[in-house]
Amino acid sequence: MTLDQIETPAALIDRVRMKRNIARMQSRMDTLGVAFRPHVKTAKCVEVAQAQRDAGARGITVSTLKEAEQFFAAGFSDILYAVGIVASKLPRALALRRAGCDLKLIVDNLESAQAVAEFGRTHGESFEVWIEIDTDGHRSGVQPDEPRLLDIGRMLHGDGNGGSHHGARLGGVMTHAGSSYDLNTPDALAALAEQERAGCVRAAGRLRNEGLPCDVVSVGSTPTALAAQHLKGVTEVRAGVYVFFDLVMRNVGVCTTGDLALSVLTTVIGHQVDKGWAILDAGWMAMSRDRGTAKQTHDYGYGQPCTLDGAPLDGYMLTGANQEHGILANVDHPDRDISVHLPVGTRLLILPNHACATGAQFPAYQALSDEGEVAVWNRFYGW
Amino acid sequence: MTLDQIETPAALIDRVRMKRNIARMQSRMDTLGVAFRPHVKTAKCVEVAQAQRDAGARGITVSTLKEAEQFFAAGFSDILYAVGIVASKLPRALALRRAGCDLKLIVDNLESAQAVAEFGRTHGESFEVWIEIDTDGHRSGVQPDEPRLLDIGRMLHGDGNGGSHHGARLGGVMTHAGSSYDLNTPDALAALAEQERAGCVRAAGRLRNEGLPCDVVSVGSTPTALAAQHLKGVTEVRAGVYVFFDLVMRNVGVCTTGDLALSVLTTVIGHQVDKGWAILDAGWMAMSRDRGTAKQTHDYGYGQPCTLDGAPLDGYMLTGANQEHGILANVDHPDRDISVHLPVGTRLLILPNHACATGAQFPAYQALSDEGEVAVWNRFYGW
Repeated sequence: MTLDQIETPAALIDRVRMKRNIARMQSRMDTLGVAFRPHVKTAKCVEVAQAQRDAGARGITVSTLKEAEQFFAAGFSDILYAVGIVASKLPRALALRRAGCDLKLIVDNLESAQAVAEFGRTHGESFEVWIEIDTDGHRSGVQPDEPRLLDIGRMLHGDGNGGSHHGARLGGVMTHAGSSYDLNTPDALAALAEQERAGCVRAAGRLRNEGLPCDVVSVGSTPTALAAQHLKGVTEVRAGVYVFFDLVMRNVGVCTTGDLALSVLTTVIGHQVDKGWAILDAGWMAMSRDRGTAKQTHDYGYGQPCTLDGAPLDGYMLTGANQEHGILANVDHPDRDISVHLPVGTRLLILPNHACATGAQFPAYQALSDEGEVAVWNRFYGW
Repeated sequence: MTLDQIETPAALIDRVRMKRNIARMQSRMDTLGVAFRPHVKTAKCVEVAQAQRDAGARGITVSTLKEAEQFFAAGFSDILYAVGIVASKLPRALALRRAGCDLKLIVDNLESAQAVAEFGRTHGESFEVWIEIDTDGHRSGVQPDEPRLLDIGRMLHGDGNGGSHHGARLGGVMTHAGSSYDLNTPDALAALAEQERAGCVRAAGRLRNEGLPCDVVSVGSTPTALAAQHLKGVTEVRAGVYVFFDLVMRNVGVCTTGDLALSVLTTVIGHQVDKGWAILDAGWMAMSRDRGTAKQTHDYGYGQPCTLDGAPLDGYMLTGANQEHGILANVDHPDRDISVHLPVGTRLLILPNHACATGAQFPAYQALSDEGEVAVWNRFYGW
């Protein structure tokens, strides 16, 4: 199959760019001397994760137990489920561990730590649990200096004998400086990367000073991973969206539009000539409702249109989106000849604001090789 | 299965409310003396469309050819594909018609009308095509008084002999006053409903005055359908989101929060007590990125939390959302006791901004009966 034969809208992966993005991140991690555990929530696609592993990644990070199940079934065993576990989800986690999956859980509160230990004890399983650390205040996690960090650590470690007698064991600490998405200068990103590193290492130190084990110190987000000057005390880094990058990351300053490996293939289906609009068959159902660039330095609307060879149509953007209609226009210079420039049937690529959100709208990717051949790579969704 | 046994996050349908919404709309259409053709893009679920048909709906409207294929396979034959057709999609439309589906297409330009007629002629098929009319300037369509309306009509009608000799036949006109979502008073809605009706009827009159056939005059959006005072000259109405309603519709003023039939079941997985936050396992992947209430009179953030019996938690909302994390907070009165009020493990319902976008994030609905029993209703996605 070639690009011409794909029905629109479609989610297109540029495999050359994807491989370059994977190599760039892995090379940086190798230089910094840390293991790399990609977050596979971005693509939810086995072929993408295999490419990351082939490049040197060790283990994966997931955002749902469904991802854990799907990737375990596809041959991935070392899996971190990086959303705080609660009691009601423990039976599924148990089933994965009993099937041989080296699944790690995270908690950021005493109630959940206790629930894991008790459930594990009841079922003769010792869950490996990491403590989530809050290093930038953007979401969940225990702050590095909070007293309860040690309470949670002791709850997980139990009497220290570990094994199935206790039900849980403390494997390490992890943090995610997600506020990095709000920054846009190298200095600010490097400073946040250092804050992320230092906070997580400090938390690990406090646990160890209490005699608690803390083998893993795991940090990361795409921007901080690429901005970190050193990662002393860190054992592994996690990042997800770097594999495709997107317009939000372009505005953060960690890639260019030429690095974006995911786009939406679309067809012009009509015009409103008086307004200078072309109407596309890619609306928000294809692009997602993500407007992540709205508050950034460059607002791309619902996405940046490009010709099929990847060249951005400068000045044009998706100014609006209904469920299955996108509106393409030149905002500053309304194009009254748009039906001549982009006649009905014209095919375009739209670069998305947020690759994780756009990818999630599609059952499969069309993965384009450097020779112009297209392979179908399935993805999954749900929980 | 009961509510307690459902894993979170989950998309919950309150069947009692859904049936009430369906009955309300159908009763209104019956009173206005028009046929009703629900838009099934909202739920993409056979059981929901069956309930609409059982209540009196005639035919369905779809937003993708995949919907047409799925609903045709489930026993629906009278299907309007309400997005402008382009040449590349005609083979799929042809396959549906050859399989016996009474599929109708729409166009708003001469190129597409010509493409349909030529493709139909080549393949011995006479496609029924309606012309899309633009009655409020919000998206696609031909304005009622544009000269090209008649050119398109003549292109579709051909020499008037119809049948497979020509490849297309003109079935009618249709319009969608989607700008109704921007309104919020009964008077403004009634005025737009009249504008939608009058514009579409005027377009039909112009075609008929030229000797062209125009059996169908199809109008609608949920707000205008519910606000129309009369529908003289209209043969059918289309509406979609009314089946669930949502917070956007509540702000438009056509329903109350007590009518909302779709919600997301979620679990509290942690807290940031200093900030008054509860962290939920429903982030934007569950709620969608839709922020449709942001510019309305009441901004609900990413959604309105309710207790399991459907009572809204006044003052609280989803103030933020990451992929699998939602942040619940009381914006005006930060709740420092939130971990006491909503401890880890608490289950809540979140009413969504936009039912079409939220439903699309889930592979299935959990449909709750008035007796508290839950059935799984599959939905589909993609194109």
